[in-house]
Formats: sequence, structure tokens, C-alpha cells
Amino acid sequence: MDLLKPSPANSSPLTPLGFLERAATVYGDCTSIIYNKTAYTWKQTNRRCLQLASSLKSMGIQRGDVISVLSPNLPAMYELHFAVPMSGAILNTINTRLDAHALSVILRHSESKLVFVDFLSRSLILEAFSLLPSEIKSPSLIFITDDDVNSTLTADCFDLDFSYEGLINKGDPDFKWVRPNSELDPMVLNYTSGTTSSPKGVVHSQRGLFITTVDSLMDWSVPKQPVFLWTLAMFHSNGWSFPWGMAAVGGTNICLRKFDAASVYGLIRQHSVTHMCGAPVVLNMLANNPSKEPLSNRVQILTAGAPPPATVLYRIESLGFIVSHGYGLTETTGCVVSCAWKHEWDKFPATERARLKARQGVRTIGMTDIDVLDHESGFSVKRDGSSTGEIVLRGASILLGYFKDPEGTAKSLKKDGWFYTGDVGVMHPDGYIEIKDRSKDVIISGGENISSVEVESVLYSHPAINEAAVVARPDKFWGETPCAFVSLKSKLNKPSENEIIEFCRAKLPHYMVPKTIIFEESLPKTTTGKIQKFKLKSKAKNLGLTRAESRL
Amino acid sequence: MDLLKPSPANSSPLTPLGFLERAATVYGDCTSIIYNKTAYTWKQTNRRCLQLASSLKSMGIQRGDVISVLSPNLPAMYELHFAVPMSGAILNTINTRLDAHALSVILRHSESKLVFVDFLSRSLILEAFSLLPSEIKSPSLIFITDDDVNSTLTADCFDLDFSYEGLINKGDPDFKWVRPNSELDPMVLNYTSGTTSSPKGVVHSQRGLFITTVDSLMDWSVPKQPVFLWTLAMFHSNGWSFPWGMAAVGGTNICLRKFDAASVYGLIRQHSVTHMCGAPVVLNMLANNPSKEPLSNRVQILTAGAPPPATVLYRIESLGFIVSHGYGLTETTGCVVSCAWKHEWDKFPATERARLKARQGVRTIGMTDIDVLDHESGFSVKRDGSSTGEIVLRGASILLGYFKDPEGTAKSLKKDGWFYTGDVGVMHPDGYIEIKDRSKDVIISGGENISSVEVESVLYSHPAINEAAVVARPDKFWGETPCAFVSLKSKLNKPSENEIIEFCRAKLPHYMVPKTIIFEESLPKTTTGKIQKFKLKSKAKNLGLTRAESRL
Repeated sequence: MDLLKPSPANSSPLTPLGFLERAATVYGDCTSIIYNKTAYTWKQTNRRCLQLASSLKSMGIQRGDVISVLSPNLPAMYELHFAVPMSGAILNTINTRLDAHALSVILRHSESKLVFVDFLSRSLILEAFSLLPSEIKSPSLIFITDDDVNSTLTADCFDLDFSYEGLINKGDPDFKWVRPNSELDPMVLNYTSGTTSSPKGVVHSQRGLFITTVDSLMDWSVPKQPVFLWTLAMFHSNGWSFPWGMAAVGGTNICLRKFDAASVYGLIRQHSVTHMCGAPVVLNMLANNPSKEPLSNRVQILTAGAPPPATVLYRIESLGFIVSHGYGLTETTGCVVSCAWKHEWDKFPATERARLKARQGVRTIGMTDIDVLDHESGFSVKRDGSSTGEIVLRGASILLGYFKDPEGTAKSLKKDGWFYTGDVGVMHPDGYIEIKDRSKDVIISGGENISSVEVESVLYSHPAINEAAVVARPDKFWGETPCAFVSLKSKLNKPSENEIIEFCRAKLPHYMVPKTIIFEESLPKTTTGKIQKFKLKSKAKNLGLTRAESRL
Repeated sequence: MDLLKPSPANSSPLTPLGFLERAATVYGDCTSIIYNKTAYTWKQTNRRCLQLASSLKSMGIQRGDVISVLSPNLPAMYELHFAVPMSGAILNTINTRLDAHALSVILRHSESKLVFVDFLSRSLILEAFSLLPSEIKSPSLIFITDDDVNSTLTADCFDLDFSYEGLINKGDPDFKWVRPNSELDPMVLNYTSGTTSSPKGVVHSQRGLFITTVDSLMDWSVPKQPVFLWTLAMFHSNGWSFPWGMAAVGGTNICLRKFDAASVYGLIRQHSVTHMCGAPVVLNMLANNPSKEPLSNRVQILTAGAPPPATVLYRIESLGFIVSHGYGLTETTGCVVSCAWKHEWDKFPATERARLKARQGVRTIGMTDIDVLDHESGFSVKRDGSSTGEIVLRGASILLGYFKDPEGTAKSLKKDGWFYTGDVGVMHPDGYIEIKDRSKDVIISGGENISSVEVESVLYSHPAINEAAVVARPDKFWGETPCAFVSLKSKLNKPSENEIIEFCRAKLPHYMVPKTIIFEESLPKTTTGKIQKFKLKSKAKNLGLTRAESRL
């Protein structure tokens, strides 16, 4: 048996890029992308991507060069998920809500050779370029135009040769795309979102993205030819791998620049949307602003990125959405843990169902292993649903490493064979995990660990509260106490600080009850709907020590 | 980027074995296997496999040892697909229709250490052992008992310690199963079926089987928790990878010892079967013996192994089955090419739909590439649906190699990066391939290549013909002429040789029309329903040269 070695026929590198070529054969005349009045077929999308990749090669882009993209969910953003790696380059999609300084840090760190930019962000990117140190050559710039917002600007403002459509037009439709030399070749570089202060460059391989894509489709049971509404930003962890996934199943991508509840309900009706993704904040938005007409068809909605409050799950499902709940990180691209639903749970009351669905769940079939390790001993925690530890993962979807950060890489990808997520969770007796908090978000009060998520989920069940986030406030006696930031559904119905504290006391042990309640118009969030707790922590710190009389 | 190397957390070997552990968590109390009055849950199946694997280790089985199984689709056969590789051994399932001589050849070639045998095959295996050369130590023997056929025999005839259930009972349910050192470790050894005279030992790796399993589930759009009826022999290419696939989706496996049309229809009704597989001969059997009651639910049926005659496809679909058609070989375990259906074809008439569905199709998303290469030049054939060449494949599902056959391995897995299938096909203008014949089954008459499959599909459309196979008969003038073997649907309606020849003349070019028609009670077949053409070829040869007057 030892004589049997891999050969090129059985060991060709795994890559999700080949899905596009296949989609052009199988779904050639079916619609690949719709954006306002623009629509493409899979044959057209394949041809456009090949042409663009060939133009990038002609411009001198080399295998392994980094190409950045700053764009909302326009058709170009979808195409670049194929065209950039098909040219041999590494795709770096950037959060569109960053400021010029953060942008310049990323452009410098990534050594980006070329940046594709939504025309509406032209002044932002030029400002970012101006912040680059003088010894650094600015990357080349290609503007993505959008007929719907700037058709008249297009011709006037810049050289058509260096416009997005110009590059496509002059490309070769018979271009042979650049296949990876090895399946471990890097394919994307994603900077972690603004929930932490120092962004890290997460690198994923072709193999990792192939496995994540296939695994995510399987886990969500995505059928052939779904209609997928892009309510999740593609720049965020590559839209959880669904740009490649939609090519695998020949789906129709409904693109959009930005959205609110009304436009989402409108697009669902207009295009008979079957699938969409979004952080819990998107679910919350849809639940709080229901459409007047009921949904014409049931819509599958996959949520991840933060633990969804059970109340929100309950309300959105009653509107006709079917929620699946998964868990992943920028370091895994897509969901690698999901709350696999059991038929036997169907018979439980709605609130109990929502509580079960709010758990993160079990590893997907593409992952090798998952565990929760005690912070002190490093052993698996008890399967009791209450002993907390760090969630660790192992499998092909895990990042290759952090770019130019060997220390950070070694700290996360440890020699014991686990990737350490930094998330605090518990293992339930049935083998399902549940996140209790990010390690850095745990509040330590009088030596007791308090899960901010647990306190938040009580706050979310208060009828007047729209959003809630709980962080640590320094305290001379206890070290830290929980401080809650809340926004309200309506100005007309404002409970007092004491009323909310009393509400929490009825449902939480005393030490977990917030000692401070701060009312805000709205809470600071990343584009993907994660509440930026680091901003709230600094605000809480500035409040000074908790007053003695608020202690229990 | 070059500094980013794989680490244990992101490069754990891909294997389908972990699906079982996960099924025990997610689908623990759901039914995994049903066989007559026996039923197990996924928790039980996981425990039984762990116990069995631990007993195998205790018996001295080493990593890389070969363990053979000779069994119909009993629950044990399903469990052994996990338990054997979980012990570190390589699984070798053997065709149950082989004779003692063929069995002894395989046992000797595979150097099998242990054989699990269905109790009803005990005399056959003992005869095979007696044929082994005296210097070879016979493998150990474990009998699989079947309460439904031999409960009274069990206790009397052999030591319970060495019965299948005995091994399970004394095993350790907390056994840590043996994970592969590398994902390229061999996991199964499958000897090619009896359609060729010299069996070859096809070796598949853990990685290959992981990819094939996931790919096959995706391609067939298998939902969570299907009810799968085992009408496909598990010994045949590991049941196209569905033993592992059913654990991935938490399906219910309906096992059976043997079947006819009535029992299949009965089981479909009894268990609300949703999915089943079978060679075209199974479809033919179901179409020719329809149940009196219509199907209570639509049943997905995946067919492969031989090109299905369009007439059979048409008839089986009219009974309420939904047919998917794929293509694979022992060298790929499962289907790696499939006739991906296009919505636009729905509007075609039924016969045209059946003709389209009879094509093998396009590569699955798990495969890297497929092509049809001209026999002479080695270049891709024209996409015209008529230029024939050899079908070649590339991807993770391709075998690691042939066991102890470096020449055979090098001949199939060529240095140009392709696996050569030996099947002759064409590429249609739309990028779908269609098999015309096995290389060795092509009839060469007066320098013209005749596809035996094409002639057969005309014969199948004759209302009186049940089965048909066309092979070469030697001819002094033409070299070879087509000779047809046919079986009839009913003795009462027997067309003459001339009537059949006239029927073919109306539909085929003259040189393709069979010059000889031989009526048979039934055609010789392998267990998996492939007609054994080598037997018919030898029969045709023995007929002597075609008579001059039958020439055109």
C-alpha cells in the first residue's frame, strides 16, 4: 500500500473557482446576478470574470499579489470573488465603513498592488492614499461605476481604460484562469472587523475555501438554483463563502447597495427570494418593522456573527422566516458550527424552541473537531451547560495564519492541534455548545465571571428595549460591575433605570444584574451588525467608578 | 505569505469516519438502521461500531491490515463500513456472487487478515479457504448471523466469542477510534466487478472518500434525514459512498438481504422511503412489474453503472419515481459525473426528456475536470455529439492506485494528469458528455466503429424485448458484425429474428443493424445488474463466422 502515492489525476488542488466554469455549462442561460435593472446569466458572469482576470494579468499582476476591493454588494463585488483569484492574485475585501486612516493601515499592511473602489467612495480612498507614507507607492486604482447612481459621471471623470467595465471589455474571454500550484496557496486576505482595535490579516487557502463553501451549502441544505438576497456584506468574511456557493448551486444573486426593512421585504416579493443571511441585527430590524403583507413564500435566513436573542428568533419566525443559526469567525470564513435542528424539538413551546435555537450547536460535517477547554487546566469542560471554557476548533476551514504575524499565528494555532477562538462557551449535556461571551467581554465581578451575553438576553426580553449591550465598569470594591447600554423601541415608552434593574433582578442572580443603565439613541455597530463593545467599554470606563450606593 | 504553513489545527486529515460520531450527537435517538424486526438508533450504531473497532484492535489487527467482508446488505455490512477503518484497517468488501475460486484469488491478492462472512455463505468461504495455497495462512473468520434466517443455528454451530455480535459485546464503547495519519492513507480496497476477467484491486484514500461522499450528497441534493432503501449492493463500490453519506445526513438505512419488485414496493410503502439507488436493471425490474397501488410519495432514484435506456427512464418516471442519472466507476467510488437537469428541459416531450437524461452529463462540483480525448491525437474531441474519444477524469475522487499493480496504475493514472476510464464517449455542444461504449465493447465492422450501446437502445424500444446486449461476432469479410442477445417480456409474444432486424433497419444505419439475433431466457449479469458481455462475446465467437447471406 505504501507504494501508492498521489498523482496529478487524483491530487489536483481543491479550489472553489472551478464552480463558475461548471455553472456556465449547467446553468448557462439562467440568471446569475440581478441588480436594479442589470441582469446577467451564468454564461455572461463566467465570461466577464475570465475577461477581467485576463486584463489583470495583462496589467502585470503576478501570482500572489494582493488586490483590494472597497465596495458594497454590487455585481462587481460578486465577480471579483472569482476574477481576482482567477488571475492568480489574492483577494482582499475591505469593510466599507472604515475611515481613511484604518484603510491606509490595511493598504500598507497588505502591500496591495491594486484597489477596486466603488465610485462613491472615491474621496475616501484618495484620502487613504494621502495618508500612506511617502516611501510607499500608492496602489493602482480602478473605479467601479454604478449606472444607477452615477451614469452621467462615468464618462467625464476618468479614463475608461481604467474603469471596471473598461478592463472587462478589453479582456480575453478565452483566458485560461490561473489554477493554484498547491491547494494550500493563499486565496483571500481578510482583516478582522472593527470589534477589536488592531486589525489582523486572516489568510485562507484555496482548500480551506473549497471545504467551507461545500460544507456551508450542505449544512444549510441549500437546494439547486436558490434565489439569494445579499443582505450580508460580501466584504465580511467573503459573505460566509456564499459568493462561491451560489456558483456551485447555480443560484441567482440579488445584489443591493444598502437596505432597510421595507426594501428587503420588497425584494423578497419581487424576486421570490428563497435564502438570505444576516447578523442578528438584521433579524431584529425585520422583526421590528414587519411588512404589511405576509411573505408570499417562506424564506430561509441564516444568522451568525453574534448570539441571537431568543426573543428576536421567536418574532422573526412568526413572520414566516425559517431561521438557521450558525457560528463562525473571520478565521473560518463561513459557519463551522451550527445548531443542527432535531425533529423532536418541534413539539416544544415556541420560547423553548427559540432558546434551543440560540445555542451555537455542533460542528458541521466539514470540520474535524470542536471542544470547550477549561482556561486553567486545558482539559475539556464538563458537559453540564454551565462550566465555561474557551471554544477550540480543528478542521480544513480554519485560517492558514495571520499575515506577517507569526506570533499571533502561533498563539491561535497552537501546537496542541487546536485553533483557539477567544470565545467563551459551555458544552451542554447533549453535545451542543453555547457561546457565553468573547473572552475579552467577560465581566469579572468579585471573582465571579459574568457573561455579558446572558445579561443582554434578559434585557432583550424587556418589551421597551430595542438593543442592549453589557460591558464592565470599573468598581473599587468588586473590580468590575455590569454596565448596560440600551436603545429603546420608542421614545414614548421610556422605562426608568430602576425599572430595568428590577426587571433584571427578577430573572438573574444579583451579582449579574447591571448596576448602571445608560440610554442611547442607538448603539455603535460594525457594518455587519456587531455592536462595537470596545467603544462602549471606553465609555463605561470614563463614567468612573461605580457609586457605592448602587452596590448590592 | 510563503511563511504560512499548514498546522495541525487547519490540516487535520479529511475522513468520512467522523460523520458517525456527529450523527450520534445530532441524530442520537433517530433510527439509523432497520432490517426486518431489528432497528438501531444513531447512538447505538456509533456505540456498536466503536465496540467492534476496539475488538478488532484487541485481536491484533494493525493499521493498514486488510479486512474482507462477504455479506449482502445486512446491518453488519453497514456497520463494517465504519468499524473496520475505525480500527485502522482497510475495508475490502467482496462481491457475494463470486465463486470459491474467484474468492480465493481475492483473499490471496489482498493478503486479508480477517474475513467477516454472512453465515449463509459459510460453505462457500470454507471452499475458498481450501483453495488457498498451503503456504498461505487462512485469514481468521467471523460469522455474521442473521436472526431472521438462522437464529436456531447460531448457538450450536460456533464459538460466540468469534461471532459478529460476540465481538461487539466484548468491545469498549469508549474506544478512541484510529484517525488516519495522513488523509492519503488507504481506507478501502475494492476489486473490480466480474465484467472483466482479471479483477484489479482499487485503493481509495480517506480524503478521496470524504470528497466523494460529500459531493454525492450535494449532487443528488440529499436533504437531512432521508429514508434510504438499500437496493444497491454495499459491496459494489461501497454503495457509491452512501453508507458514509447516510451518517452525514442522519438518514435511516433500510437494509435487506435480497429483493424483487414486490418487496421493493412493499418497503417503500412501509417505511416511506425517499431515496434509493440502482443500476438500470433495477429500474427496468420496477418498470416492468409496477405495483397495483400508486406510490404514496415520490421516490428519488439514482441510477448509474450503465447507460439507462431512454425507454426505461420514461416508464419508471411515469410511475412516480424521480430519476437522477450519474456516472462513476469502481475507480471513483461514487458518481463523479451527473446529468445535471435544466429547468428549460421540463417543457420538452417525455421522450426527448428521457433522451437528455440518458446522457451522463457534467462533472460534479467535487471533481476538478473531465474531457473526452481523441484516441489518436490525444486532443479534446470536437463538441459535436458524434466525435468519439476516451473519457478522462481528474479530481479527488479518483483512486489512489491499483494494489500491487504499478503497471496498471501507471496506465490509468497517466503523467498527463488524467485518469483514463476506458469508456468511449462524445462531448455534446452543450458540454454534456455521453458514453457510447466501453473501449473493449466497441464493434469494428468494415473499419466503422459501432457503439453497442446505441444498437441496444434501439432494441430496448422494441415492445416485446425485455433486455438486450449487443457484442461483436467474427466475420470473414467485415472483421466483426453486431450480434444481439435479447430476452423477451413474455413467451406469448415472440417476434422473429427477421422482424427484429427489420425494426432496427428502420432506425439505424445499415452497418449498425445486428446481423444475428439470439433469444435467451435471461442475460448473464453481475450482482449489480451489469450484463456480463464477456460471456456473451465468447458465446458469439463460438457461433462461428457470420453466414454470407446475412450480410448487407
